[in-house]
Amino acid sequence: MARVVIKFGGTSLGSIEKITNVASLIKKKKTNNDEIIVVVSAMAGQTNDLIEKSKKISKNYDKAELDVLLATGEQMSSSLLSAALIDQGCKSRSWLSWQIPIITEGPHNASRIYRSNTDEISKFLKSGGIPIIPGFQGVSNIFRLTTIGRGGSDASAVAIAKFFDADFCEIYTDVEGVYTTNPNMHSQAKKIDKISYEEILEMASLGTKIMQASAVQIAMLNNISIHVRSTFSEKEGTKILPDAKLDYEKSVTGISFSKNDAKVTLIGVKDRPGVAAKIFEPLGQNDINVDMVIQNISPDGKETDVTFTIKRDQLDQSIKLMNDIKTKINYKKLVYDDKVAKVSIIGAGMIVSPGITYKMFKSLADANINIIAISTSEIKISVLVNEEKTSEAIKILHKNFNLD
Amino acid sequence: MARVVIKFGGTSLGSIEKITNVASLIKKKKTNNDEIIVVVSAMAGQTNDLIEKSKKISKNYDKAELDVLLATGEQMSSSLLSAALIDQGCKSRSWLSWQIPIITEGPHNASRIYRSNTDEISKFLKSGGIPIIPGFQGVSNIFRLTTIGRGGSDASAVAIAKFFDADFCEIYTDVEGVYTTNPNMHSQAKKIDKISYEEILEMASLGTKIMQASAVQIAMLNNISIHVRSTFSEKEGTKILPDAKLDYEKSVTGISFSKNDAKVTLIGVKDRPGVAAKIFEPLGQNDINVDMVIQNISPDGKETDVTFTIKRDQLDQSIKLMNDIKTKINYKKLVYDDKVAKVSIIGAGMIVSPGITYKMFKSLADANINIIAISTSEIKISVLVNEEKTSEAIKILHKNFNLD
Repeated sequence: MARVVIKFGGTSLGSIEKITNVASLIKKKKTNNDEIIVVVSAMAGQTNDLIEKSKKISKNYDKAELDVLLATGEQMSSSLLSAALIDQGCKSRSWLSWQIPIITEGPHNASRIYRSNTDEISKFLKSGGIPIIPGFQGVSNIFRLTTIGRGGSDASAVAIAKFFDADFCEIYTDVEGVYTTNPNMHSQAKKIDKISYEEILEMASLGTKIMQASAVQIAMLNNISIHVRSTFSEKEGTKILPDAKLDYEKSVTGISFSKNDAKVTLIGVKDRPGVAAKIFEPLGQNDINVDMVIQNISPDGKETDVTFTIKRDQLDQSIKLMNDIKTKINYKKLVYDDKVAKVSIIGAGMIVSPGITYKMFKSLADANINIIAISTSEIKISVLVNEEKTSEAIKILHKNFNLD
Repeated sequence: MARVVIKFGGTSLGSIEKITNVASLIKKKKTNNDEIIVVVSAMAGQTNDLIEKSKKISKNYDKAELDVLLATGEQMSSSLLSAALIDQGCKSRSWLSWQIPIITEGPHNASRIYRSNTDEISKFLKSGGIPIIPGFQGVSNIFRLTTIGRGGSDASAVAIAKFFDADFCEIYTDVEGVYTTNPNMHSQAKKIDKISYEEILEMASLGTKIMQASAVQIAMLNNISIHVRSTFSEKEGTKILPDAKLDYEKSVTGISFSKNDAKVTLIGVKDRPGVAAKIFEPLGQNDINVDMVIQNISPDGKETDVTFTIKRDQLDQSIKLMNDIKTKINYKKLVYDDKVAKVSIIGAGMIVSPGITYKMFKSLADANINIIAISTSEIKISVLVNEEKTSEAIKILHKNFNLD
């Protein structure tokens, strides 16, 4: 007997017809021996509609009331899916977060699930019932509705898998799994069968949208296996597993890219102790996250060029902040480039495979792709390239690291 | 200091702009000394939208899940109105039925509010807060969401006025109050300033849509004064009060009509004991409510014609049932007419004014309007007329009973 938590995203529940199909899918999965707990997002588009409404009421819509408003989305889809299952002859009911209850802590709109009662739902599971739980929401310790941030239904599903000691957690979505790179960018992209939490976290933070990072983190901390798969296909998807359950045939698992970056270079900075701190202090104070940093020392050692990258939508603010400190740090000139992209190779297998960095740089050099900046972690190497070279870089790396 | 419950219907909350206007109206009413509890319906059209969705999922949508679905409507409007008030500088919050809690009994979709906690909201009122409570819903004793039937927000408001010992209950709607008759039917219709519970109940049941009958009944049982008025006008509306607070200058307060009726006549029924019971038994068994009954004895006393009226949409079924018992009760012929209307005069003053019945019949006879059937209660007289005579009958009665 297995106990499984399965979660359906908004696109899987985007219409009455799709909800009916999801009910059929669940019915087919449900055998006498398996226990299924279902977690749902709001129907596609609904959360955005509600946010639009809230903006028309107030620019500073009360955060607690926003949670009351947004919570209606998953309440609706929970009822609709539960009723569709009942219509198909299954035993089912919706369990709203305050009925379970699922208790959260932290501020409204950005709470964190930390406790759940399991008694009533466990009884219901034993009686053959299929509980439908609205994702993305809970109640605070004073029993007000809370939400856990956009995309939070994934985190709800993994947290519920933890509280109910589920064997694994299936995330049904509109893609067939996690790919070696974005299939829209490269036709040779292939579905990854198995991947580690760390790899998926690197890929997620580097621009591959698969699952909410906090959901993966909860799974990693609690050793919960996740299966990301498509609602619209019967194919197996991608399993996200602990390291121990993986064997790394390949040193590189996937390639991510992001086009959200911009580069700023301060030319002719007088090189003296503490100058770097003076440059990055105002950025930090203004919540601007600096990603990559390069410093080129001038031949005489008296001047230096400092290059850093930031999110593209923070470029204007960053330039302004650098202009503010121009006299203080005494640089000659500021240049910037917002036509850069970050391409990253990710793989837990890197740790045991020497020469990956060399191979990456060589591959790009052979293709005449200039590397503007580099950053690395244990399981990823990122390079900054001209934006127009993104696609070419991905293709070459995909081939050279045997992902084609 | 007064404590008031004010309720806004769906048309008053039909758009973001209208919700903002309602917030301004509430803010204006709120003085330091007054305590205001607000009850809201769902935004106009929303409950119908949700019902449409439910019908697409299942013809037998689970009743408990339907309540979960429908409850989202008032949850949304509660949040939006509360946030609009906060935006305008008021202290406000939504209190969902399970947070208060408002406890109901009876089946899903048709529950009845019977208990409410008042502690937290009373504290909130004392602190100057304006609580917004979703109407139409509550929770059962096992804490599942329930609804109290369509239009039930009126009943919610009156029940909350009772639990919180409010001085009165204001029902804000899209009309300026209760009229002597339908203004669309007769240009001389006038707003009634004060009316008794009994009168409004007779008018409601006879086809004047003002307030849900169950709401008036709760008010009557608990002596709660109601003020029906328009959200879109500052004019005083109609006060619904106990008899004792009214003086009846006029014997007739208002004129109602309904065009939902149909008439069936069984001709040549053999007149023997128990025959009426045999006719009405199958109708009762099939939940068909017989309204008026007339029996004409034939000159020789051996045969009789039996006429009765029913709701027009139950005519086909009634004819079928009568055909089924044709041999059993041995009547000659069945005729029917679905072009009949019921016109009623209502007035608590009738009890002390003799000759009202005569005056009504005389008025209609003078105008050559044939009375097909009659039924009376202590405070109303209804007559069945040809549907095409409805408007004329209303005009004559409105004039002759000094309502013009």
